[in-house]
Amino acid sequence: MSGAGPEHPVVVDPGSSRFLSLPEGVTLSESEGVSPGVTYARGFLAAGVAARIKESGRKDLGVVAVSPQHRADAVGAAVFTTNSFAAAPVVVTRKETSMAGLTAVVMNSGNANACTGEAGLATARIMQNTTAQSLGLPANKVAVASTGIIGVPLKGAVVARGIREAAAALSPHGGQDFAECIVTTDRFAKACAFDVTTVDGVVRLGACAKGAGMISPGMATMLCLATTDAALAPSVAKSLLMREVGRTFNRISVDGQMSTNDCVFFMANGASNVRLSSTGVNQLGEALRALLLRLALMMVADGEGATKVVHLLVRGARSDEDARVVARAVADSTLVKTAMYGGDPNWGRILSSAGAALPQRTFPAVSLDIGDVRLVRNAGAVDLSREERERLHEVMRSSEVDIVLDLQSGVAISEIYFSDLGHEYVTINAEYHT
Amino acid sequence: MSGAGPEHPVVVDPGSSRFLSLPEGVTLSESEGVSPGVTYARGFLAAGVAARIKESGRKDLGVVAVSPQHRADAVGAAVFTTNSFAAAPVVVTRKETSMAGLTAVVMNSGNANACTGEAGLATARIMQNTTAQSLGLPANKVAVASTGIIGVPLKGAVVARGIREAAAALSPHGGQDFAECIVTTDRFAKACAFDVTTVDGVVRLGACAKGAGMISPGMATMLCLATTDAALAPSVAKSLLMREVGRTFNRISVDGQMSTNDCVFFMANGASNVRLSSTGVNQLGEALRALLLRLALMMVADGEGATKVVHLLVRGARSDEDARVVARAVADSTLVKTAMYGGDPNWGRILSSAGAALPQRTFPAVSLDIGDVRLVRNAGAVDLSREERERLHEVMRSSEVDIVLDLQSGVAISEIYFSDLGHEYVTINAEYHT
Repeated sequence: MSGAGPEHPVVVDPGSSRFLSLPEGVTLSESEGVSPGVTYARGFLAAGVAARIKESGRKDLGVVAVSPQHRADAVGAAVFTTNSFAAAPVVVTRKETSMAGLTAVVMNSGNANACTGEAGLATARIMQNTTAQSLGLPANKVAVASTGIIGVPLKGAVVARGIREAAAALSPHGGQDFAECIVTTDRFAKACAFDVTTVDGVVRLGACAKGAGMISPGMATMLCLATTDAALAPSVAKSLLMREVGRTFNRISVDGQMSTNDCVFFMANGASNVRLSSTGVNQLGEALRALLLRLALMMVADGEGATKVVHLLVRGARSDEDARVVARAVADSTLVKTAMYGGDPNWGRILSSAGAALPQRTFPAVSLDIGDVRLVRNAGAVDLSREERERLHEVMRSSEVDIVLDLQSGVAISEIYFSDLGHEYVTINAEYHT
Repeated sequence: MSGAGPEHPVVVDPGSSRFLSLPEGVTLSESEGVSPGVTYARGFLAAGVAARIKESGRKDLGVVAVSPQHRADAVGAAVFTTNSFAAAPVVVTRKETSMAGLTAVVMNSGNANACTGEAGLATARIMQNTTAQSLGLPANKVAVASTGIIGVPLKGAVVARGIREAAAALSPHGGQDFAECIVTTDRFAKACAFDVTTVDGVVRLGACAKGAGMISPGMATMLCLATTDAALAPSVAKSLLMREVGRTFNRISVDGQMSTNDCVFFMANGASNVRLSSTGVNQLGEALRALLLRLALMMVADGEGATKVVHLLVRGARSDEDARVVARAVADSTLVKTAMYGGDPNWGRILSSAGAALPQRTFPAVSLDIGDVRLVRNAGAVDLSREERERLHEVMRSSEVDIVLDLQSGVAISEIYFSDLGHEYVTINAEYHT
C-alpha cells in the first residue's frame, strides 16, 4: 500500500452549495476536511493500492469488505448501467454475484475492461475469485467494477497481484485510500460520511464515488459505493438504493445514456446493532438521498473543464416524460453548455433546444427565469431594465446558476443538474486515450 | 449595395472530398472559384446589402426574385423546422405564403427574429409586405427567413429600408452577394451551381446556404435556397425538395433537433423553356441531391471549430429506427467528437454511445471499422499489428474519416456526416451573444 499522503485531495463537501441541505438528524462526519468515506460505518475495512494498471503509478485498485465478525449480517444491492455494451465486470457481477449477500467489492481504475471479449470476462472472474480467495469468501459474495480506457486488455496477473496486496492492507481507516484508487480524470476524490440519528438509534452512512466526465450526456463512467452499519433486510437495501439513485445520480446522469461501466453499490452489515423500523428506514433513505446527491453534485462540479453547476427545473409540462425529455435536451445541448461557460445569458438556446425536443407543438405561455430574472414571458423576450440586466450578468458569473423553464401546459416537473462545457473539456477529451 | 469585394470567400466546391461525386450529365458551373449560386439559373435576380442589422456593417439582408418576364411560371416549395419555438418568419411564411406560387424570398442574418412575440410576427410581416410592394407582387408570393441571435427585437424600419435597397439592386449577377448576406458564424459563404443535361434538354440549378453551427446536434440555424430554370409543376417541386432534403440535410442535421429558424426553399421559373418528362425530373432530382449534399458537407466542414468531417455508416441494424438512433447518438456524442478532434482512435466511445442509445440489448457480433482498419470484431477489441496501428493513426489524422459500425443484427442502415469538436467551438459559442 502506498504510504504517501493523498494523491488527490478528498473533498468532503461541495462547500456552500445552495443546492444541498442535510435532513434533520443528519450530521456530516469529517476530520480536517477529509472524509473517512466507506469506512466510517463500523465493521467495514478498505484499502487502495497502486497495482500498476495506471502507467502513472498512482493508486488504481481497491477492496472494501465487511469485517469478518459482521459477515453473517452482510447484505447488499446494486444498480447497473443499461448500456448494451456493458463491460466485463458488469456482466460478471450482474450474473454471478448474489447481491443479497454482498460482502466485498473490488474496483480498479485505469482500465474499464470493456469491449474486451472473452478474455475480459476471464479477467473479471479472476478479480472476483482472487478477492474471494484472499478474504475466505465464496466468489458470489464479491462484486467487481472497473473504470478507465475501453478496449484495452486488462491483465489478470497484474490485478490479481494488486488484489492480494490490497486484501493484506485492509483497514478500518482505508476509506480514503479506496476513494483515491477509483479516480480517473477526476480532479478530486469524492467521499462523504454521515451520522444518522434515527428513531431507532444512531447509524453511520458513508460513501465514495468517481466520475468527472461531463456526466450528462453520459458515457463517462460513474462508480459509487455506499456503506452503512444499520441492519437491513436485502429487499430493503435494494428498494432504498433503487429509489434514491433515481432521485440523485439519475438527476445528473440520464436514463439510457449510461456508460459501459456505471454501477452503484450499497452494503449494510448491522455492526451498529440498530435494526431499523419503517420510520427509521425512511430516515436512512433520506440520509442516503442527501449523501448520493452530495456525491452527484461533486461529480457535476468536477465535470471535465467545468466552471459552474446549473440546476434546471422544467415545470408546467403536460407529462413526466415531456418534462424529462426537455430537461435532458437542454442539459445535453453543447450550445447551452458553452453559453453557460461563457457566462452568456443566451437563453434563446435554452428555448431552441426545448422546442427541438418536443417538436411541432405550441407553448404560447412559456416562461424562462435565470436566477430571479424573468427573461421570457408568453413566449416572448422580456424587455429588461438596466438593473435586471446587471443582475442577470451577476447570476451568470456565479458558480451555481438556477434556471426555471415553465412550459405552462400542465403540472409535471423534472429537474436536472449539469455542468458547463469549456476549453479544458476539449483538451482532456481530445487527449485522453493517447 | 456594398461595392466592396466578397467579405467571405465563396467556396464552390468542398474540393477533393471523397464523399462527393457528380451524377452523369451534371457539370459544375463556376468561374475562378466563385459560384453564381442562386442566379446561375436564368430568370432569377438577387441582391445582398448591409442593412445595419449586424453591428459589424457586413452584408446582412438579401432578396432573390424571379425576373418579371418569368413570373407567370414561378413555382416553389419549402421545408421548415419542426421546432416548437419556430421563429416569427417561419410562422408567417408557413401560414401566409402560398408556396405553389413562390416568386421572391427575403432573408436576413444578424437577428433570428425568434422568441420575439407579437412584435416579431409584425416585423416578419413588414419584411414580407415591403418585399412584395417593392417588387409589385402579392404578399403571399414572398417567403421570409431570418438567422442570427434569438430573442432580440428586429426593427421593422431597419429591415424595410434594407429591403428597398436590395430590391433596387436586384441583378442577374447578385447570387454571390446574396450568399454572403445570409452568413452568421460561417467561415465562408456557401454556393454551388450545376448545368444539368437531361433527356429533355439542359437546365440550370444553383443554390446557396448558410450554417456553421456544429450542425448535428442542431440548434444552429441552417438556411438554403435552391433555384432552377426548369419548368416544374408545384407538386413536382415539392416532392423533389422533400425527398432530397431527407437524403442530404437530414443526414447531417437530425430530425427533431432543428433550430427555431431552419428552412430550405426551392424555386423554379421555366426560363429554360425545358419542360421535364418524368425521366428528366428524376435527373433533376439526382442533381438536386448532389447539390444539396455538397452544401450540406460544406456546412459540416465549416462546423464551428471543425477540423474534420466524419462519415458514419451504421449497418446491420434490426430496424431503420435502430440504425438512425445509433447514428445520431454517436454523431452527437461530445466524447466521440472531441476524440475525433484529437485524432484519437478512442473507439470505445463509439461503442459506448451506441450501446447507451439502444439499452439492454446484446450485440455479440458487433464490428467496427475506422478507415480500412477493423478495430472491433465479435464485440471484442482486435489486437492490431504495428502496421495497422500506423494506418489507423494516419486515417485519424486525415480531414475525412470513414467509420462503419456493423451491429450484425439485421439489414437496416443509416448514415450521417458530422464534424469534430475543438477548442474553437467553445470559443465561438461561449462568446457568441456578448
